[in-house]
Amino acid sequence: MNNNTYCIIMAGGFGSRFWPICKDDSPKQFIDILGTGQSMLQTTFERFACICPRENIIIVTNRGYVDRVREQIDGLLPYQVLGEPTRRNTAPCVAYAASVIYEMNPNANVIVTPSDHAIFGMENFIHDMEQALQATERHDCILTIGVRPTNPNVKYGYIQFSEEPVDARATNLHKVITFTEKPPVVMARQFIATGEFFWNAGIFVWRLSTLRKAYEAFLPNIAKSYFALTSSTPQADVDNVYALSESISVDFGIMEHAENVYVMEASFGWSDVESWDSLYGIARHDEHNNGVVMGKSLLYDVKNSIVHVPSNRTVVLQGLDGYIVAANEDTILVCRRDNEDCIVKYISDVELMNSRGEKPRQ
Amino acid sequence: MNNNTYCIIMAGGFGSRFWPICKDDSPKQFIDILGTGQSMLQTTFERFACICPRENIIIVTNRGYVDRVREQIDGLLPYQVLGEPTRRNTAPCVAYAASVIYEMNPNANVIVTPSDHAIFGMENFIHDMEQALQATERHDCILTIGVRPTNPNVKYGYIQFSEEPVDARATNLHKVITFTEKPPVVMARQFIATGEFFWNAGIFVWRLSTLRKAYEAFLPNIAKSYFALTSSTPQADVDNVYALSESISVDFGIMEHAENVYVMEASFGWSDVESWDSLYGIARHDEHNNGVVMGKSLLYDVKNSIVHVPSNRTVVLQGLDGYIVAANEDTILVCRRDNEDCIVKYISDVELMNSRGEKPRQ
Repeated sequence: MNNNTYCIIMAGGFGSRFWPICKDDSPKQFIDILGTGQSMLQTTFERFACICPRENIIIVTNRGYVDRVREQIDGLLPYQVLGEPTRRNTAPCVAYAASVIYEMNPNANVIVTPSDHAIFGMENFIHDMEQALQATERHDCILTIGVRPTNPNVKYGYIQFSEEPVDARATNLHKVITFTEKPPVVMARQFIATGEFFWNAGIFVWRLSTLRKAYEAFLPNIAKSYFALTSSTPQADVDNVYALSESISVDFGIMEHAENVYVMEASFGWSDVESWDSLYGIARHDEHNNGVVMGKSLLYDVKNSIVHVPSNRTVVLQGLDGYIVAANEDTILVCRRDNEDCIVKYISDVELMNSRGEKPRQ
Repeated sequence: MNNNTYCIIMAGGFGSRFWPICKDDSPKQFIDILGTGQSMLQTTFERFACICPRENIIIVTNRGYVDRVREQIDGLLPYQVLGEPTRRNTAPCVAYAASVIYEMNPNANVIVTPSDHAIFGMENFIHDMEQALQATERHDCILTIGVRPTNPNVKYGYIQFSEEPVDARATNLHKVITFTEKPPVVMARQFIATGEFFWNAGIFVWRLSTLRKAYEAFLPNIAKSYFALTSSTPQADVDNVYALSESISVDFGIMEHAENVYVMEASFGWSDVESWDSLYGIARHDEHNNGVVMGKSLLYDVKNSIVHVPSNRTVVLQGLDGYIVAANEDTILVCRRDNEDCIVKYISDVELMNSRGEKPRQ
């Protein structure tokens, strides 16, 4: 384990795809979506604690979630949790954390990661991260992790890479040619057919010096304001920086402009678990293709369904084919899997019902 | 209101047809099955408190439920709740309560009622009960309440009556010819076709003197042992009486033998609410024939279904036709309405799963 290695975990996400399991006040990263007994953030933290010292991990989240982070992960030092006053996408978030790391170690080699993705194959993951960290030590590059696509998913970002390996010491390391965010399905199919595209797993590795140069080149305003922040900057000053800051992602703000972007193919399994359908895809299935992720369940004549209820809750289902059955402490959802896209409507209808005491037309 | 009027509420029932809403430790009479905000026992008690003084109402229940009864109904005096040490069917239960009433008022006129039936039309109910009480004042008879059948329900008892009214002052009062418990459907259809049969609503009215004579004639052993009990009999002596007692219903033990059994046709609506199906039948339906009895619900493309979840719980359902969706604090059931008879199997499977930690074959 290298003391120069740092990790930035981005844990500010909100979102409601997994409603009612996830709600705005408890988004996906804080929930045990996978039924492992740990929240996705806890799993992510423990995963990176195998790669760098625990005190080198910085978690950036919305200020409203700071206490939640500290509840879920014991023994974090003050600088390890940074609370953003408002959402400004990933470029400001990474710049803030990078500036706090710079205070401690200007020579840091930094992994930036989402907090709510699923990783399968921990040994491969550690091996890949170590290889990536070695590559960014050798090259002044921004290294992204690519996943070989298995289907033309239109919700992912696609990375086109040059076939030629960059480096004889890492034959799975390629130069990036283009990034394409959420392509139409026809285009996604073509991408896959060429064999020259990866899914973007959202994990970047770069040295702090590379990172700072890239921000200064492509996002100079963000560099100027955020690189002035330290772990002891008063909250009001952090608020000012965020208030005046543009909102932009690392992908759009830097990756698409920089020349020195490489991609390494992951040897581990990955899912961004962004929908019930993707969770169904990675869940362990019984002989009737049901995925019971959480809850004590008895299923009779139930097929192709996914079940996620609190672990202390018993659920008895009969006569369902292709359903989502999900519950939290106060809400129950039973809906067809092919109807998942309507959940956002259900959420606003429930809010309407609870706020006005009236039922929307259905 | 006549101070001679007493009421015996039989609240010892257990049973699991409404699982998971009802369980052995909280059977139907203690639950708000109808979504009224009151348990069925509370509703029954308040209903009879309009007919006789509150302190004239005796509730007989299993000893394990005595505290539950006192929690649900405020201000009950010690003699008003009798705890049976074991189940001996209705004849012992009624004899015990009748003996306690006899202590207080040998001239009592007594209504015996289940605690877990639904009554619709309170004014008619009060009117019918008053008429029944007047009839038993005039006649030395056992008066049962009959309900005009609407379908050949095979789970009910049927009462064949003589067309001729007994009494010019109550033209809805008839002599009973036969009792038939749970007939086959073909027979039930014939019964209905003749127009000479009522459903047995399980409510009896009789003077205490009539009741005691009937027990002494047809159930002399029960009369001898139970009529010796008083409200201050030590628990151990009550236990002895129950331990040595036969187990028999008032219907089989007395009604089927006695000559002076009359039936009065109810002018109120009635259901014994003995199944999800019967609850569905009496629930208020929306325009898609859904009965949401309890819970805050949003239904999308849902038809012919019944929903009963805790009142503070939200339930969102989509794409269901003909289902039961029921939950208590720790269990959720989703099952086809036409599969209700399997619920008893589900219950034993859940018990097996929870006790042995293994799932039964499904």
